[in-house]
Amino acid sequence: MKLLFDLLQQFGVSGQEYQTSEFLMQYISKRKYEWNVLPDVFSGETFHDCIILKFGNPRTALFAHIDTIGFMSRYENQLVAIGGPEIIPNTELVGRDGLGDIICKLKVHEDSLFHDFPRKIERGTRLAFNQNIRMTGDFIQAAYLDNRLGIYSALKVCEELEDGWVIFSTYEETGGGSVPFLLKFIQENSPITQALISDITWVTEGVRPGEGVVISIRDKFIPRKRFLDRIIKLAESSAIPFQLEVEEYGGSDGREVQFSPYAIDWCFIGAPEEHVHSPNEKVALVDLEAMIQMHSFLIKNL
Amino acid sequence: MKLLFDLLQQFGVSGQEYQTSEFLMQYISKRKYEWNVLPDVFSGETFHDCIILKFGNPRTALFAHIDTIGFMSRYENQLVAIGGPEIIPNTELVGRDGLGDIICKLKVHEDSLFHDFPRKIERGTRLAFNQNIRMTGDFIQAAYLDNRLGIYSALKVCEELEDGWVIFSTYEETGGGSVPFLLKFIQENSPITQALISDITWVTEGVRPGEGVVISIRDKFIPRKRFLDRIIKLAESSAIPFQLEVEEYGGSDGREVQFSPYAIDWCFIGAPEEHVHSPNEKVALVDLEAMIQMHSFLIKNL
Amino acid sequence: MKLLFDLLQQFGVSGQEYQTSEFLMQYISKRKYEWNVLPDVFSGETFHDCIILKFGNPRTALFAHIDTIGFMSRYENQLVAIGGPEIIPNTELVGRDGLGDIICKLKVHEDSLFHDFPRKIERGTRLAFNQNIRMTGDFIQAAYLDNRLGIYSALKVCEELEDGWVIFSTYEETGGGSVPFLLKFIQENSPITQALISDITWVTEGVRPGEGVVISIRDKFIPRKRFLDRIIKLAESSAIPFQLEVEEYGGSDGREVQFSPYAIDWCFIGAPEEHVHSPNEKVALVDLEAMIQMHSFLIKNL
Repeated sequence: MKLLFDLLQQFGVSGQEYQTSEFLMQYISKRKYEWNVLPDVFSGETFHDCIILKFGNPRTALFAHIDTIGFMSRYENQLVAIGGPEIIPNTELVGRDGLGDIICKLKVHEDSLFHDFPRKIERGTRLAFNQNIRMTGDFIQAAYLDNRLGIYSALKVCEELEDGWVIFSTYEETGGGSVPFLLKFIQENSPITQALISDITWVTEGVRPGEGVVISIRDKFIPRKRFLDRIIKLAESSAIPFQLEVEEYGGSDGREVQFSPYAIDWCFIGAPEEHVHSPNEKVALVDLEAMIQMHSFLIKNL
Repeated sequence: MKLLFDLLQQFGVSGQEYQTSEFLMQYISKRKYEWNVLPDVFSGETFHDCIILKFGNPRTALFAHIDTIGFMSRYENQLVAIGGPEIIPNTELVGRDGLGDIICKLKVHEDSLFHDFPRKIERGTRLAFNQNIRMTGDFIQAAYLDNRLGIYSALKVCEELEDGWVIFSTYEETGGGSVPFLLKFIQENSPITQALISDITWVTEGVRPGEGVVISIRDKFIPRKRFLDRIIKLAESSAIPFQLEVEEYGGSDGREVQFSPYAIDWCFIGAPEEHVHSPNEKVALVDLEAMIQMHSFLIKNL
Repeated sequence: MKLLFDLLQQFGVSGQEYQTSEFLMQYISKRKYEWNVLPDVFSGETFHDCIILKFGNPRTALFAHIDTIGFMSRYENQLVAIGGPEIIPNTELVGRDGLGDIICKLKVHEDSLFHDFPRKIERGTRLAFNQNIRMTGDFIQAAYLDNRLGIYSALKVCEELEDGWVIFSTYEETGGGSVPFLLKFIQENSPITQALISDITWVTEGVRPGEGVVISIRDKFIPRKRFLDRIIKLAESSAIPFQLEVEEYGGSDGREVQFSPYAIDWCFIGAPEEHVHSPNEKVALVDLEAMIQMHSFLIKNL
């Protein structure tokens, strides 16, 4: 789990993913030689802060977004949300501007957000939840399990992966924008017709912690039934615990696959969490384990 | 009208269009030899459940979406809407899951939707309005005239069509996603600069049943005036009855043409209906006839 | 300023930009020989009503939208908004339909909009604010400074420009739709990785009239920090007055660059105005001057 703990310490609020991206590149550059298949690695300015790995002859792509929600400083101690963070007064926020490190508290006054840092924070500075990782029995609890667990799962999948694209995308929490150029690249190099989204979803009355990885039948957007039927049939044959989700709201990188100019089926598959988008996101370790296994199994068998 | 009656019996809730698609392929495969020009037919997994017909040397594409609104089963007898169905308590719904056929009623309780089927329905099962076709004087009334009439009109246009693409798209009721890859295909094969949308619109204080097909000047999205002016001038020269619509809301496959990476003008043209997105959609037969004639006339003369 | 005054008199409500486009083509055709570098000019039906200029070997593209907000006539003296015009009862509106020139007043009744023109106005006719240009001390005040100033700034930049694309886009006020095909064209001809948006923003508690051009760190959408950091560092070295903006809402052509299938960084840079989207938009002349200088400086140095 050292990798996961390290990932949880990386700063990566949407639009400022470069530290996370650099951490991933160091990890991949070192570890890829131990993997079953040595991937081609694509990164650098041409791909903004995204990273693409190509293993063998891909039929399927696995997407994990590397950005997190957070806040941005505005004027007169105001903050503006990035993505949809849970607003809990007095939550500890951290960041850094040209004058140095920042640690402050989130304040709420008449629906507006403020910080209490004693000095002015430079305009446009991103702040993240102060990380606090807790291992409590069978659960991990921390900020940004969404989507550090999705990255972690994708990297574990890499160890045995024979054929597939693994893609680390950016900006997902603010509506996207990297998946279109990433898809264009992979379709022009080694095209696929199937995509899996490695991301974290919600515990609800139908999806319970500890009962397996979630295969999402829909959120605000709806994948094609024929593809879902194939996935569910495979999942049933796998002995890996899973749950089926049906939600009316929410979205993921799957949305941009759906609206892309390529006929690519997609499905969101990930562990469910409690206390979504708060500093206290909580996931059952067995669900994380099932997530890794299910991604591996499906990429191999789809 | 047998074709229309058959179309109205096909199941096609968004994401599960394959039955409708298979019905269309059977019809097209049999009938295309009787048409004025034999089209090239593109279908199959590469196109998901869409179908593309190419007649001669196209200048214009005609789009008709083959999906319908409906419902999806969630947990504990809950339903989630697909597209924007009219919520009328006790409406009869039908579908099928792994345990067999389903017929049940829509129940509403505190803004949540439920079914009353005696057994559990598998998660993610799609339900549609139970079909009830009524021919009352000069009107047809049924569920899913939107967009079975659009498909019907497009197939009637095929009979005499010399030059044009005819495209049967999917997912329109849930925001789209097939038009981008369909457009990419046609632009890379035989590009066009004009698109007509064969779909059904609303009766309002300015658009009356029986007064002709609707040429839409705008809905939420706005086509280019220069193209609309050409269409309206042609329509005036045609002697086919038509009405001009100006709406603030609503959308169609035209939205995805507008935001595509191709400079393609578009216009929505279709009959108006009452009781939109309910089991009782109602259209005047003279407006349907004008719709078919107007599509034929414009594709020939644009 | 004659060019700006002429621009402010052009009709260009979204979807009906052709008069503005023709005016620009006349200006460009005459003036381009006096510019430092003679650009390639792309226009005509292939580009709808957009215009593209290519100078030298571009690294950066400058986008200015040529449409304005306005109104469209519906049924029974109703009007529907185009874009988000400020609704001020009795505002004077002008336009033209098949029966001749129109001048009327905006009326509001129970959240619906009407006109008071004595005769019926043809359905789908666009109406614009009656122009009234006022030079008051250090300010210009008029309708449609957004985005006639953005066009004006881009044309002034053309005079000295050595390397860059300058792009006049359409439909921006109604959500866009031309930037995708414009981007495809430039990326397939002489691709760039940087885009600047020449458009007008809002005076707020953090952005004051007369204090310089605005470099926007975010609106509803968020550019990449690495690119903004480069821009801000360059701006600081320039001695041109500027202000940093952080907004939660609003959008621009930058949105379509963000979601395009190309890895292109973007940033919105423009003067701030008061009385946004009203007939009384007001901008400080020093901010307009700083806008022109900053665009020139950045395109040269990025």
